[in-house]
Amino acid sequence: MKIIAIDSSGLVASVAVVEDDILIGEYNVQYKKTHSQTLLPMLDELKKMVELDLQTVDAIAIAAGPGSFTGLRIGSATAKGLGFALEIPLIEIPTLDGMACNLYGTDKLVCPIMDARRNQVYTGIYEFQKTKEIPYVYELIRLLPQCAVSIEEIAGKCNEYGREVIFLGDGVPVFSSKILDLMRVPYSFAPAHMNRQRAASFAFLAMQYFKEGKYVAAKDHAPEYLRLSQAEREKAEKCC
Amino acid sequence: MKIIAIDSSGLVASVAVVEDDILIGEYNVQYKKTHSQTLLPMLDELKKMVELDLQTVDAIAIAAGPGSFTGLRIGSATAKGLGFALEIPLIEIPTLDGMACNLYGTDKLVCPIMDARRNQVYTGIYEFQKTKEIPYVYELIRLLPQCAVSIEEIAGKCNEYGREVIFLGDGVPVFSSKILDLMRVPYSFAPAHMNRQRAASFAFLAMQYFKEGKYVAAKDHAPEYLRLSQAEREKAEKCC
Repeated sequence: MKIIAIDSSGLVASVAVVEDDILIGEYNVQYKKTHSQTLLPMLDELKKMVELDLQTVDAIAIAAGPGSFTGLRIGSATAKGLGFALEIPLIEIPTLDGMACNLYGTDKLVCPIMDARRNQVYTGIYEFQKTKEIPYVYELIRLLPQCAVSIEEIAGKCNEYGREVIFLGDGVPVFSSKILDLMRVPYSFAPAHMNRQRAASFAFLAMQYFKEGKYVAAKDHAPEYLRLSQAEREKAEKCC
Repeated sequence: MKIIAIDSSGLVASVAVVEDDILIGEYNVQYKKTHSQTLLPMLDELKKMVELDLQTVDAIAIAAGPGSFTGLRIGSATAKGLGFALEIPLIEIPTLDGMACNLYGTDKLVCPIMDARRNQVYTGIYEFQKTKEIPYVYELIRLLPQCAVSIEEIAGKCNEYGREVIFLGDGVPVFSSKILDLMRVPYSFAPAHMNRQRAASFAFLAMQYFKEGKYVAAKDHAPEYLRLSQAEREKAEKCC
């Protein structure tokens, strides 16, 4: 089975084409351009490079939020357009779940953090557990599903587990000194090649989701923002 | 510090630009085109996408072998050309070391295997050990430096450690049934997003090497083939 995966939930724009256990291609950029300048040109470039026949693609995996509102909308709109045109489903991957898969196979807790502004982070706590298959396959387990909380709250929850934690995400440079103050368990920060969104990691989860029938029609997909947008918040405040 | 990393040691063509702990961009392709068709066009595309000024690059990291002889020569020639023109050094990363870094942060042994033909694999055995820094940084430790051996020999060495192993590399699909027969310890195969060369993983090691002064002038670099080429072997056989 063949999947195109797309992520533009944060600072990174990322596209990947995965067929079964082969990463045919991936293209990731973390640069000051907007996702509308990068995402589709990157997919077009990758499509040409690997001579991808779009008619052979089975599904579009999308980093479905939370994240930057504009970024999510660009990613979702792109995925919806592709899915609608190709008449294939969309596989919605929670952003923090996809990020955690960068650390597949670790025995530590994985805590992705994205800077959500307004003194919050989008975050979650994950671990990998062995299945009973031989050779082993590791499954992503959500200990704390993705949520928007303060850095103090997520650090406190990590400390409760009493286990070593690997942090990743664009929240790390923003909150690293707070993390240093707050952590009571051993921890580390993922290095450059693992510390941001990768569409290929989302494709890994998407393969499982697809087999489990977890997908939606392109017209039915909408990003999961987890919070109200600034405009919605201001409107709600005016009403009260 | 800013590094361009290049890998064409195996089936994958991969380029990455890393600045300190930020992966500015990476482009990986595993497709039936030859590396001469992919590698430099990919770098050119990435350079344009992230508006990379080559004059700001400090070093070129190269997957320095072992691997496909032709692939290594294309990668090395490209790296040497860049390094020579830009008057910056090359950082030679042993191929298997770079591949192992895909699994940064795991507690398992990491065993990359590349199909070396003639009933051999290029392989090595690695683990990650915590440094004493806070937050922790994990260092790659070579338990068995890269070598060309039979799959039976490397499986035997893995079994001797009595620890769980994660295999990755293009040798996995070739030797998976043999591995199933030979392994006496728990093991798993890395999934698609982690199971082949990534220039970004080579850049991770290259950052450390550069700080330790481990680099060479472009003119002094040559790939490490680990074995004689077919032509050299046949010539040697004729002489005896």
